[in-house]
Order: sequence, then C-alpha cells, then structure tokens
Amino acid sequence: MIASASGPEEPFALGVCYYPEQWPAERWPAYAQQMRALGLTYVRIAEFAWSLIEPEPGRYDWAWLDAAIDLLAAAGLRVVLCTPTAAPPAWLVQAHPEILPWDRAGRPRTFGSRRHYDPASPVYRAHSRRITTALATRYGTHPAVAGWQTDNEFGDHDTARSYSPAARDAFRLWLAERYETVADLNAAWGTVFWSQQYSDFDQIDLPNLSVAEPNPAHALDFYRFSSDMLARFHDEQIAILRRLSPGRWITHNFMRLQHDFDHYQVAHNLDFAAWDSYPTGAVEYSSLSTSDKRRFARTGEPDLIGFNHDLYYGVGGGRPFWVMEQQAGQINWAPSNALPAAGAVALWTAQAWAHGANVVSYFRWRAATVAQEALHSGLLRHDETLDRGGEEVAALDTSAWDTAPLQREFALLHDYACLWAYDEQPHSAAASYWEQVMLFYRALRSLGVDVAVRHADSDLSGYRLIVAPALTIVDEARATHLARYAPSAHIVFGPRAGSRTPSGNIHPSGQPGPLADLLGCRLRNFDGLPPWLSVEVDAYTVTTWAESYQLAGGTALHTYSSGPLSGQPAVVRHGGVTTIGAWCAELVRDLLASELQQLGIPTLDLPMGVRVSRRGQSTLWQNFTPELVTLPDGTTLAPVSYRLDSTRS
Amino acid sequence: MIASASGPEEPFALGVCYYPEQWPAERWPAYAQQMRALGLTYVRIAEFAWSLIEPEPGRYDWAWLDAAIDLLAAAGLRVVLCTPTAAPPAWLVQAHPEILPWDRAGRPRTFGSRRHYDPASPVYRAHSRRITTALATRYGTHPAVAGWQTDNEFGDHDTARSYSPAARDAFRLWLAERYETVADLNAAWGTVFWSQQYSDFDQIDLPNLSVAEPNPAHALDFYRFSSDMLARFHDEQIAILRRLSPGRWITHNFMRLQHDFDHYQVAHNLDFAAWDSYPTGAVEYSSLSTSDKRRFARTGEPDLIGFNHDLYYGVGGGRPFWVMEQQAGQINWAPSNALPAAGAVALWTAQAWAHGANVVSYFRWRAATVAQEALHSGLLRHDETLDRGGEEVAALDTSAWDTAPLQREFALLHDYACLWAYDEQPHSAAASYWEQVMLFYRALRSLGVDVAVRHADSDLSGYRLIVAPALTIVDEARATHLARYAPSAHIVFGPRAGSRTPSGNIHPSGQPGPLADLLGCRLRNFDGLPPWLSVEVDAYTVTTWAESYQLAGGTALHTYSSGPLSGQPAVVRHGGVTTIGAWCAELVRDLLASELQQLGIPTLDLPMGVRVSRRGQSTLWQNFTPELVTLPDGTTLAPVSYRLDSTRS
Amino acid sequence: MIASASGPEEPFALGVCYYPEQWPAERWPAYAQQMRALGLTYVRIAEFAWSLIEPEPGRYDWAWLDAAIDLLAAAGLRVVLCTPTAAPPAWLVQAHPEILPWDRAGRPRTFGSRRHYDPASPVYRAHSRRITTALATRYGTHPAVAGWQTDNEFGDHDTARSYSPAARDAFRLWLAERYETVADLNAAWGTVFWSQQYSDFDQIDLPNLSVAEPNPAHALDFYRFSSDMLARFHDEQIAILRRLSPGRWITHNFMRLQHDFDHYQVAHNLDFAAWDSYPTGAVEYSSLSTSDKRRFARTGEPDLIGFNHDLYYGVGGGRPFWVMEQQAGQINWAPSNALPAAGAVALWTAQAWAHGANVVSYFRWRAATVAQEALHSGLLRHDETLDRGGEEVAALDTSAWDTAPLQREFALLHDYACLWAYDEQPHSAAASYWEQVMLFYRALRSLGVDVAVRHADSDLSGYRLIVAPALTIVDEARATHLARYAPSAHIVFGPRAGSRTPSGNIHPSGQPGPLADLLGCRLRNFDGLPPWLSVEVDAYTVTTWAESYQLAGGTALHTYSSGPLSGQPAVVRHGGVTTIGAWCAELVRDLLASELQQLGIPTLDLPMGVRVSRRGQSTLWQNFTPELVTLPDGTTLAPVSYRLDSTRS
Repeated sequence: MIASASGPEEPFALGVCYYPEQWPAERWPAYAQQMRALGLTYVRIAEFAWSLIEPEPGRYDWAWLDAAIDLLAAAGLRVVLCTPTAAPPAWLVQAHPEILPWDRAGRPRTFGSRRHYDPASPVYRAHSRRITTALATRYGTHPAVAGWQTDNEFGDHDTARSYSPAARDAFRLWLAERYETVADLNAAWGTVFWSQQYSDFDQIDLPNLSVAEPNPAHALDFYRFSSDMLARFHDEQIAILRRLSPGRWITHNFMRLQHDFDHYQVAHNLDFAAWDSYPTGAVEYSSLSTSDKRRFARTGEPDLIGFNHDLYYGVGGGRPFWVMEQQAGQINWAPSNALPAAGAVALWTAQAWAHGANVVSYFRWRAATVAQEALHSGLLRHDETLDRGGEEVAALDTSAWDTAPLQREFALLHDYACLWAYDEQPHSAAASYWEQVMLFYRALRSLGVDVAVRHADSDLSGYRLIVAPALTIVDEARATHLARYAPSAHIVFGPRAGSRTPSGNIHPSGQPGPLADLLGCRLRNFDGLPPWLSVEVDAYTVTTWAESYQLAGGTALHTYSSGPLSGQPAVVRHGGVTTIGAWCAELVRDLLASELQQLGIPTLDLPMGVRVSRRGQSTLWQNFTPELVTLPDGTTLAPVSYRLDSTRS
Repeated sequence: MIASASGPEEPFALGVCYYPEQWPAERWPAYAQQMRALGLTYVRIAEFAWSLIEPEPGRYDWAWLDAAIDLLAAAGLRVVLCTPTAAPPAWLVQAHPEILPWDRAGRPRTFGSRRHYDPASPVYRAHSRRITTALATRYGTHPAVAGWQTDNEFGDHDTARSYSPAARDAFRLWLAERYETVADLNAAWGTVFWSQQYSDFDQIDLPNLSVAEPNPAHALDFYRFSSDMLARFHDEQIAILRRLSPGRWITHNFMRLQHDFDHYQVAHNLDFAAWDSYPTGAVEYSSLSTSDKRRFARTGEPDLIGFNHDLYYGVGGGRPFWVMEQQAGQINWAPSNALPAAGAVALWTAQAWAHGANVVSYFRWRAATVAQEALHSGLLRHDETLDRGGEEVAALDTSAWDTAPLQREFALLHDYACLWAYDEQPHSAAASYWEQVMLFYRALRSLGVDVAVRHADSDLSGYRLIVAPALTIVDEARATHLARYAPSAHIVFGPRAGSRTPSGNIHPSGQPGPLADLLGCRLRNFDGLPPWLSVEVDAYTVTTWAESYQLAGGTALHTYSSGPLSGQPAVVRHGGVTTIGAWCAELVRDLLASELQQLGIPTLDLPMGVRVSRRGQSTLWQNFTPELVTLPDGTTLAPVSYRLDSTRS
Repeated sequence: MIASASGPEEPFALGVCYYPEQWPAERWPAYAQQMRALGLTYVRIAEFAWSLIEPEPGRYDWAWLDAAIDLLAAAGLRVVLCTPTAAPPAWLVQAHPEILPWDRAGRPRTFGSRRHYDPASPVYRAHSRRITTALATRYGTHPAVAGWQTDNEFGDHDTARSYSPAARDAFRLWLAERYETVADLNAAWGTVFWSQQYSDFDQIDLPNLSVAEPNPAHALDFYRFSSDMLARFHDEQIAILRRLSPGRWITHNFMRLQHDFDHYQVAHNLDFAAWDSYPTGAVEYSSLSTSDKRRFARTGEPDLIGFNHDLYYGVGGGRPFWVMEQQAGQINWAPSNALPAAGAVALWTAQAWAHGANVVSYFRWRAATVAQEALHSGLLRHDETLDRGGEEVAALDTSAWDTAPLQREFALLHDYACLWAYDEQPHSAAASYWEQVMLFYRALRSLGVDVAVRHADSDLSGYRLIVAPALTIVDEARATHLARYAPSAHIVFGPRAGSRTPSGNIHPSGQPGPLADLLGCRLRNFDGLPPWLSVEVDAYTVTTWAESYQLAGGTALHTYSSGPLSGQPAVVRHGGVTTIGAWCAELVRDLLASELQQLGIPTLDLPMGVRVSRRGQSTLWQNFTPELVTLPDGTTLAPVSYRLDSTRS
C-alpha cells in the first residue's frame, strides 16, 4: 500500500454524498454554496455514473462531470470520486449477459437495480479495468480530487457470492491452483465421507442446490474463492488508480457486519477503510428484544454501531476511518423506517469520531425524487428545504475533535474464515459468530472500556487483555502466534475456540486442537440449546450453547450446576488464559470485569444505551436512551445526547 | 358499452353455479326442477368447459351443452354462459407451450389446474377469439341465454402478471409505443439513478429477479402493461359477444380486493360487474386480530364484504352488480375452513342486496366429488342431500327487496395505480393501500352511513363528502378535477395524498405536489412506524404511519404530542378540505364524524360486526356477531341475522 | 421372500455403524477390539463407499474393504454390508447428469452430498444393478457377512419424489400401463373439472409448478408412481443379493414417519425392517407444545419413538426389527441439538427391545472429524475417548431381554395411500394424517396397552380391538375386508373414514362410502377448525376437526353441544363399531378406555412420558420424564430410567 498524505491525518471533517446528475444543472452552484455553508468539506460523487459517463460503448461524456467537479472545487470543496463499477450499463449487459451474477437458487439475476455483476467474470473484469482507467486518466490528477472510493458496498444484496457458470469455471481453476491434485483436495475436504471423492476438478459443482447440505469444507473453500475473486477485481482497480492518480488516497465503503468476504483481504491495498452507517436499520434487523427495538428504534443501539467503527478501524490497518455514508434522517430499506430522534445525527457523528473516524459523510445531499430510494432522506428534503438531519449538521461544532490515532489496551480478535466455519454449522438455532462476538464486545463496552478489533493473526504486542470470542479455526501457526502473548497479556477465549482446522474439519485430537496446551483443557462435550432450554452455572443461566472441559493443567473457575454437564468445568483458568464455554452475558461480563480488576483497570457499570469512548485526551459520554441518565461521576446526560470531556477518564 | 335491457333492472333474483358435465345426464332433469323449487332464476354454466366443447383441435362437441341448456330452459331457468378461456385444454398447451404464464421466479407454470395462460401471448389471444366466436355463434341468440360471464376470476392464483418471454417481448413493444424514445422512458423512470439508463428498448427486462428491488417506475409500468394485456384480451371477447349475442348482457366475476390489474379498465366494456364473495375466507386471510378472527370465523366481517360490494358497484359503472359466486357452506381453499354459522348465508344474501346486488348466485349446485374443490360445499352435499346453505336459500323471502339503484351522498375515492405506487414502497411493515383505505371505510360504516366507492377521476357531482384515503398519484389534471368539488363538498384526504407523479416519482416540490393549494399545507416529514412503536396525537395513539405538515394557508386541527414530530400538525383544515396524516382508527372516525355533523348528517355509533345499509326506501340492519345486540332504536337483533325496515333510516 | 435363519431369531444384540475408510488403517485393529469389549455383535460398514470401491469407472478397489471385513471377523464381530447406491460417485454424475433428481421447484439437484439419484432413471438403475452385483459377488458368501442393508434412508432429503425429465417420461409410461386409455385416466382423475381432460398421455406433466394446486388424483397417482419406482429399484437390488448372497438376510434402514413412499411395498421383499431412531430430533421437529419440547428435549417423547417401533414391526411383516442407527449422543441436523440426558441411551435401547427390536445398532463408532456430520456424536468422541453414550452402552446388561415375537391383542390400521389422500387436502391447518393417527396411538399407550400397527388390508384375525384412526380411502373390497372382523372384534374409526375412493375422489354417496352399513351412519357435515376456534361435545373441547353424522342404524354416543353442528351426533355406535368424528384427545382416550373395559381389559392411567411395554413374559416400565414417578403398583421409577419386570403385567 502506498501511504497517502491526504485524508486521515487532517482535522476532523464532514462530507456528503452527492449525485449532481440527478438534479438540474442550474441548481448545482447553489448546492455547492449551501454545502460550504453547512460546514462540509468533502463531496462524494459519480458513484453510479457509468451509463452517464459512457452512454454508448466507447463513447465517453465527460462534460457534465467536468462541470460538476469544477463547481465543487470552485466552492472550496474536496471531491471524492468513485469507480462506477457497482452498476454496469444496460448496453454492456445486453452485449454480455454472462457478466450477470446468479443467485443461490441457480438463476441469473437481471439488470435494473445495482451490483449486477460477477467479479469472477473475465469479461466484466476487463470492462472494470477499462472504465477505471478512463476515469482515472480524466480526473486522476485533478487538484480537487482528494481520493477515491472503489465501487460501492461490496457484498450488498447477497452479491459477494455468485452461482454462475463463470463462477463455477473460475472455482474449478482456483481449486486446481490451490490443491494441484484432486487427491489433496479430497484429503482436505474429507470427501471420503458420503462417497464425495472427486477424480477430476471438472466434477466439482458450486455448493448450491445439493440434495442435503453441502460439505462444509466445500462451502468454506467456495467462500474463500468468492472473496478472492472480489479481492482480485478490487486490486485491479486499485493498481490503476495508484498509477494514474498519484498522491490520492483510496478507500471503499464497507457495510455493517457484512460477512460474505474477507474484509482484511479485500481492504489490504486501501489507505484506510470506510463504512456506511445506518443505525436505525441495524436495530430493525438485529436480534434485540422487542422492548430494546422500541427503545433504540430512533437512535440505534450504540454497540451495534460502535462495533463496526472498531471493526473498520482494524480492517483499515489500524488507522482512522471514514463513515462514508452516515444516515441523517429516515432510511427506506427496512421493513419499517422510523424517523431518527432529535439529536441522533449529532450523537452518531460524535460517536463515530470517538471511535476513530476522521470524516463523517452524510447520505445524501437531497432526497431523490425518483427510483428505488425515493423515500430515503437527504440533508435536503425533496422540496429542497433543509431536513431535520441537515439542521443538526448545521449546528455541529467539531472544533474540539482531534484526530489522534486511537490508543487501546484491549483487543478483541476477529477472522472471517472463523465466521464462515461457525455459521456453516451453528448447531444451535440462536448461535452465530456475530452474536457470540457481540456477547463479549457488549460486556467490555458495558464495563466502560474501549477495545480494538483486530485480526487474529495480527501483531498483538502491547495489549494487556486479548479476547477471542469465537476463534473457531486454529492451526499450529495460529496457536503458536497466540501463545506468544500469554506471558504479557491476559487472554480470554469463548466457546468453540480451536474447534476447526483451516479446512473446516475437526482436529483429530478434538477441540481445541493445538490450543490445548495454552488453554490447559480439552473439550468434553457441547450442548446446543434450543430457545426453550437452558442450563445453569451456579446462579447464571446459560442459553444457546454450553460446552464443558476436561482439565489438562488448568483449573475450573466455574462448573455447571444443572443439565447433562452438571459438575463439569464451564470456565477454565490456566495461568493468564481463561476459557469460557457457557453462553451467558452476565457470566462473560463478570469474568471480564474480574480480568480487568486483576490488571488494575477501573471499570464502570454502564446500562445498555449509555456508553463512553475515548480518543486522544478526550472522553465522550453518550446517551442513546430516551431518558436523562446519571453518569458514574454523578452528572447527568440528557436523552439522545453526548458530552465531551477534555480529559481522558 | 351497449346498455342492455336484461339483467340489473329486473327484480332481485337468486342463481346458482352449475357444472352439468360433472354429473350423470340422467340427474339433469331432476336438478333443474329442484333449482326451480328452491326459487332460483339464473344458472351459470360452461365455465371451464373448453376441453368438453372442443375435445380435439377444431372438433366441437355441442350435444351435451345443447341438452343442458335446453333442460334448464324447459324448467324456466335463465342461463348465464361463460367463455371457457380460464382453462385452455391440454392439447392446446401441448401444441403451444408458449401460451403458458411464467411465475415471478422465472419458471413456466404448468398445465393441470386453471388460469394457465398468458394474455400477452398472441397465440393464445387468437385461440381465445376462436373459441369465443364458436360459442357465441352457437348460443348467442339462444332464448334461454340471458347473458355472459367472460373467463373466470381474472388475476386469481397470481396470474395477472406473467414473466414469460411472450410478456417480455410485448412489454418492450408496449414501452416503445408509450414512450416513443428511450430518452423519454429514461426521463419518466428516473434511470439516472443507479446507472439504469437504457439506450435500446430491447435492453429492458421484466422487473423480476433483479439484484436489488426494481425501480418502482419500471414496476408501475409493468403493472400498467399487464393490466392492458388483460384488458385487450378481455375487450376482444366482449366485441365478439356483442356482435354475435345481441341483447345479452356481459359481465365478469371479479375477486375480493384483487389488486393486480385496473378493474375499471378491464370492466370498461361490461354491462355491469360481478364478484365472487367468500366471507369466511376473507376473514382467514385478513389482518384482523386473532380474537376478531375467532369472532367472525363463521360469518365473515361485514366491512370486508361490504367494501367489495361497494367497490364493484363502482367498478361496474355505478350500476347494480351480481354476486356471481356466493359462498353457501364451507370453502376449501383457506388454511382452515370452518363451517358458516346458521343464518350466515341468508345474512350475506341480504347484505349483498342492500349494497346494490341484483342477483346473488350461489357456488355451487352440488359439491364436487372430484378434483381440486372436492371439499368445497354446494347447495347439495356430495350425496345429493340439501346442505345447510341450501336449506337457508330455500327459506329466503326476497319479495320485499326492490332493485332501485343506490343513492349515496358520500364517496370514497379509489384508483389502482395509486394502490400499485403505494404498495411498491410501503415504507412501514403494516402499511398497505387496502389497509389504509379500510381504515376510512370502516370509520364511515361504524358511523352508520353508506358510501359509494368511486374512481378518483369520475364525476363526483352531488356528493356532500368525498373521502380520499390513499390517493398517492396526483398530477395537475387530477388536482384540478378534485379542486372543482371543494366549493360544494367536504373533502378528506388520508396520508400520502399527492405523494407521487403518474410515473411513480416524487414531485420535485415534494408531497402533495399539485394538491398543495387545495390542502393548504405541504409535507414536512413522514415516520414509518414498526409494530413496536407508536406516537400520540393528544389522547390518540398513532401506529404504522405518521406524517406532519408545514401549514400553507390551512390551520392545524391536531398536532403530534409525542415522538419526533411533536408539536407539528397531524391534521390540517383548509376551508372544507381536511388532510389527515396520522394512522389512527379512532382519530379518523372522530374526524369523519365531525365532518358529517358539520354537514348535518346524523351518525350512529355501531360496534364492529353490526352494520346498517340502505337501498331504495328500505333499511337493512345486520348483526354479524354471535350475540344478540341492541340497535340504536332500542330494538334487538338476534345473532347472525338481519332486519329489513321498510323506511329509510 | 426367502426366510433367513440369521438375524431376528437370535438373542438380543447390539451393533454399531462404522466407517473404517474414514480412519487411519492403523487404528482398525484397536477399534475392533474395543467394539468387542463394549459388548457389540454387529458392525455395519460400506454404507457410502462407492467412490472408494470403484474410484474410476470399472476399476474396483477391494483391498481396503477386504482388510476391514477380515479384521472385524477376526475379532468375532458380524458384518452388515450395504449397497452403496445412496451416493453415486462424482464420475458417474459427470458422465450421466440425467441420473440426478430434480426438486419440486423444477431444478436439477447437484452432486456434493447424498441421495443424488432418481430411481426412475434407467441409466441409474443399470449402474445400481452393476455395483450391487460387484459387491455381492465379492462378499456375498463371506462367512463374516451376516446380512445386507440396501442403500440408505429412502426418501431422506425429500428424494422419494423427483421432478426430472426422466421421471416425467417414466410417469407417462406408468400411466399408460395403469389406465390403458386416456379416457379411463380422465374418468379416474375427474378431469372434467377445470377442463383438465387429456387426449394424449404425453400431455401429462408432473404435478409441480401448476398455477393452482394440482388435481389431487393426479398427485395421488404421482405418489404411487414414485413409490413404484423406488420399489422397482429396490427389488432389483434384492434379487441380485438373494442370488449372490444366499442365507444372508436383507433389510433397509427406514426413517421416522417418512411418508413419501409406500413402505409396505418397498419392504415387501425384505427379511425384516430396520429404522433409524433419533429421539431428540423427533421432539425438535414435532408439533409438541413448547413446554413438552422442553420436557422431552433430552430424552425424546416415548410415543414418537414407540410408534415407529410398532410401525416397522408391521412394515417388516410382523417380525422383530432392527434399530439400525440408534442415537447415542447429540445429533447435528436439528435446528438446535441438545445433549441427551444421562440414562437416555440405555432407556431408548430397552424401549426398542420391548417394542420388538432384536438388534440395536448405534450411530456411529467415532464422531467424524470431517464433512456434513462433523458435529454428530459417536460412541467415541473426536479424540477417541469414550463418549457419554458409549459409557452407557458399556454398562448395559441385556441378558434378560428375550427375543420372542410380540403378542398384541389390539391393532391400529395404517396405509400410505390414505395418508397421501389426507395430506393432499387437509382442510384444517393443524390436521394431518400422522397427527390424527398419533391422537389414537397416544390414547392407547396412555391406557397402558400395547398395540400392533398393521396395514389396513392385512389379516386382522385374533385382534380384539381394531382402531382405524384415519382410514380415508375405502373401496368395496376394503369395506368387505373390515366388515369380516366386526363379529369378532370391536372396531373404532376416526374422522374421515371412507371419505375417499382409491383415486382420491369422494364417493358419489358421500362419506363413508361403502363403509356406511358397517358404521351405521353417514357424514352430515365437517368443520375444519382454525387454531383460534373450537367446539364442544359436552365437557370435551374439540379442535382442528369436527364432523357430524346422520344416523343410519347406529346410535349417537355423543352429540355436539356448541357450534354449527350442535345437537348432531359426534360419536356413533353400531354394534361393536364406533365412529369418532371429533378431534379431541380426551374424548378419544375415554372412548377407547370404554372399549377396553367392555372387552374386560384392565387399563392404566399413565401420564405423558411414562409408558409400559411388554415382550415375551417381561414388562418394561419406562420413565422418560426428568422426575421420579410413582407407578400404578406404588413403586417408583427414577428419572430417565426403566425397570424390567420378569412377569407380564
């Protein structure tokens, strides 16, 4: 990656997503002035503009975009340009229907919305390089262009994985490269099971429409392949931009908890990560209880937002990130789309900053009067009046928000292959990788501590506490890597640690495979609990998942007190390493509090919806609830508001 | 349309749906006599008889149908004949599989039930004309033939829209005719959004299987196209019948709340409309609460029935209609199929009459012993005994039921394109066009007043109160049309009035577009409420939808008292025009009661299940509940019963 | 069938399902010894071994299987060999994709799991015969081979019915053979309805993807056809095994309540039946209440298990059966997969024996470390330690379990075509054939009596009470057959008895058709009750289904006391024949108790979860609940345990 001087090192700034092509050109000058007046710095444009830029094959129309950029530049605004590949034009699909993605049901998906391309298609890859080259040639060195966004929201609408003939052909080649011989593939996938042995790579189908569920190793490799296709597609664009647009940064706007590709891999060559934050939609689609959904319907729930901030800080290489699209009014894509509470837009902006955002860019300038997102809000209403969110943006004072890199003492480990392996065989209806990760993340946040989300294989030096909530895949290398930190840090593992090999198999020695020495225990049994069943660990009620251990050097901190595992260890301690096998928010919280106490770290007892985050020398107290709350220092915080203290608490 | 002397002007009559071909010919004479003895006048036959009429291509077998008609005629019964096009024969599908409809999932639907044709298929259209011509040539002037039913239940089984290659080709032609240039289509659809611009009509797919949801303008035009195909198919049959069967009326049996085509358009050339009423099924598929479903499981809920009566009175041009198929025992197509209560068949018949039916025809004569509807009741049981419903029919005295046209002072406006635009982007899970319309309809019925359902663009002269519950699409012409009645009538608009252009876009001036002057306000914000969230307007609780206004000449009658819109107008009054933005049954009811009071109209306070309707000089009190109820005049009405007063209340 | 001296006549024995190919060969000798040490007798192997046996077309690799069998033999174990046809190898699918099954949605299903074949494919049938011949030639007379299992779990993963072109072609031929003329088919199917008449067998589609639901007679014949294809496929394998493996028994491992083929037909040539018992999964997928699901989550519910034991005793010709796969720890295929309670494996084994199992064979030896079932338990854990179930097996003492054939005085009649006809048109959401059968089965078990499940047309001599819970299809022959037992036995019919002809039509005389004389009544009306509706018969509450009768010689034992059928007979008695029309567990139980009392049979009053079964001279008391229970004799039984009394109670 080429480090870039622009972007994340500058003062905190605001931006907006803007589609000049959707509005009469005579309104453009006034819009630019109004953006400045609102205090905006960055304007993202040309996101879905391919059919305007290239209305016919090979004929480019730059005039409108030239004019749009120049007007913004003239108003002192900085432009973020997008490669327009998330929406190839109709003429390209007509000429090359083989670029379309196919869905899991085995059907080609049609033109008429967006993301209608298969990154495994060599035809599409060529066109992607061509349009990227054309755009970067035209604007790569334009002085107003601050940086680039590639494509848009990889993986949205279930597009990270395509089941097309193009994908099938590419998958077979990918497997042949990865395994060289079918014998090696057969060994890795355990095809000895159910007579699945292949004698030819061309016998291998994509893992959809199989009679029973597919082999999880087959699925896992397909997920890796799909992620690779996206990364290759992405890297091709980045290489072109690096060459033709020197000195500009490059980012991509990722999505909340998107899990269908390896974000570390796809982001590897970016300067920093960005993501699109829509807090009310996150609540609507969450597993929160109905009462919590009601409580947070208009503010979002802070940990569902904050986790993504922390995630993309890490995905971007441990660097300040952007919120490229920040909800600033009602969204349009949830089953119901409630208005945000007064104060919510300001609160979201402040929280993003405190979690490491250097820019928050609102979506979108003016509410669209046409097409799929016509009911989505903008800073301006359909009728050009300033909407509720726009008024909050106008009132924001961000002068005290310095853009220091984050300092974090605690790390939470994450890895997409672990996620894929977990969710392919969840074994309990309420269990999933993200739910298990959030169980630990929420506990830390409720204790008032900040946490870095890090890839499991990254350098973890300097962290005093390392939490691995759901580290399913562990081989010798990963086990050795983690063991390296045991002398210097406390480490906490959640259920299923070390349950899988990189192929997605079970270790012949059983769980936790090569982690056994570190954990001081081995798995005895696991118990997948349906919603109507629970077991106990003393006064704690365990739902969803319970696993017990055979001690092998460690000592039992807690044992099950009911159910089939009664009397068996539920939590094991081995030196500074703790293994938690019981799914219970209170137990996890109490154990993590105990770890922090042992490390001499003061903790708080924050209720759901009240959070604290620190950046530089400042502390940001946040109240996402509809009530006035009393903070630990005895002061109060109004509903849906924040307070910035200039000292680090 | 050719006005016809037969049919709706005659005395109220009863009929039955009869399939002689399903029974041994030796039973036909007795059946005809028994029909007469039961007091029936009309007998509908030959509905799905194509494969009997034309067992091989071009070979017609009329003998059985001749005999059946002659026997009925001899018994003094009048025959309603059907074009048999709802079920093309197997040999035609075998020869021309391209006539089959395709489902939304992109699959051809197969032979073996009914409605297996695509009205966009030119091949099918030719065969439809051919069989209609043959049938009308044979029986068009038969003295016993009173009139015709075209086809059967357009749109049933999700067949109003086909996603076949034939439909795709026809859609492209239809678009080319409508827009002439792709540039105009691009402008109308707002394809500047998401790079959707077309350069060739042949690039346009049907709006299924797109990656994200389709462009709503694309969808809206596809719905218009599909409706057009059905109307053209229908008009072709009607033209043939007019030519070959002079003096006979023509109708079609529409369905409850069917919404996939424009019924006004498809009914345009009919003499009157008919519909098929199955009250217990309507309850089972409704959004009623479980306790209301229990309460009305055996009687139907009166407004769910009555609205359709009023709707088809309007669809048929403001003329008395038929209930072509009236449930007279258990149905077979709901998840569960409870028996009707004793008295329900008589109550349904009386209610239909009071809402403007001139004929009620029961479905069906004898319960089928074969095939898909073997568990559906008839007037006769499988074993030929008279079933419960048949006994009620035998006991009916309809001599006092005069067939005067309805006199209505209040109109409720309806339009199918408004429905399509609403439901394409509902924005709140519980919101839909029909639910919002029923909110207003129920309020009027609970106040004891009768209401006409009218197309929004029809002549509204003479109505004292005009209610437009969900008039989403409003252009200048429609706004001008409505403004014309403001001096003479009170007008009440529901949420989302004027939110859309005819293309389905938002007006650049925002909601209510060209209605702003009439309403005296403009939209400020809307709030799509999930089921777990509500806001308040004083003591009223608002669910599902809340919108607030900026006053522009009008005055606020009510303001929100909680939620993000607190303090903003929820109901605006401007002269005689009231705009209601809050979804709340009680508020709507109180506001409509106030309008009626201002007009000097007395209102009642009828509980759910108790209703009153007026026709000619009579008043019909109806009790759909399982309890004895006390009416406003202090008299009582037994459970599941009606009382006819010979004075208009 | 060739009666075989081996197998069911021997002492009760235990076995295990074993996949040596999945483990290093160096572990095989130890495993064999450990099996012996655990007390196992039988080892089932080679179930999904085709791709190992024949890694390339025509090249067989027997070495590994020779070695595996010889090692087991050397340890004194007896081998059960499997035809490996449930999982054809990849190379065969590559060469012949036309052998793949197609799903109901019209898509070919892909390679990569199991059961990916269509038994109607002549190509696959040839390969099935070839591989069976090869395997039987190699091992048919091996002294260690005790018997054969054909294929695996027919019908699993919705594979009993395929919607492939191969199936369509075969279906047309099958129909032409069955009906000879389309006129006869038209008459049988009632195609006069909805213009469905065929003039050519090649016009007939498979009954999927039709616009409305298919004709139930069409569906019923397709189900018969599909069952026939499976039976022919099966019979071909059996014929080869009989020829090449003389003196060995042949069985198949059927599944819990699988209903997509006629098990009597498919099992016809077997020596005895086997089935695969997974009690915790049965609870998870049952219609039990949430509280009962919680109660039995770790033990299974005894009647859901016991019914299948009794069913397969009958399917196998009234001979002791095997549990071929017995759950011995957590399963992996339910939404959630709870651990069995301590004692459950022993309890399941004892219950199986008492219901007529001669062998219980645990699934599986060691938990797989790879592929789809990696989270399923084995007797050994992944790490080779003895798992919880293995410990229970080791502790089992089965020495007192004699293998006498069962003696039963009461028969419960069953028939798969009756099931298909019932479930094709259930008419009430909660109604299904199995639910209605279980209503009666549970009642008998709660009364403490044992019951034989018998085909409706089998010889019923000697039974004192015959219960026909859901005998929908009754023609003259069946009516005559049943009437033969009326003088010697009490007979009890449930709702819908005689409601259908063999074609699936309604009798022209209505229900109960030719049973009318036997029952002394005819159907008056039926009432399909949604979940929110019930009616009463005195103090009994009737849900789901209520039918009333016209007396025709019989007398009313009970009449409805509320609802539309109020005052009409709900239960009719005619001599020794009782007809029950009301769906009510308590009423059914009280009526059956009364029948037993009249026969002088003592009954018990056992709560749910507590059961008694008898075999030979022994009585087995079983407690499936988590509490200590008091038995009728005053003794107590610990939670999840059994007691074997050496006297028949």
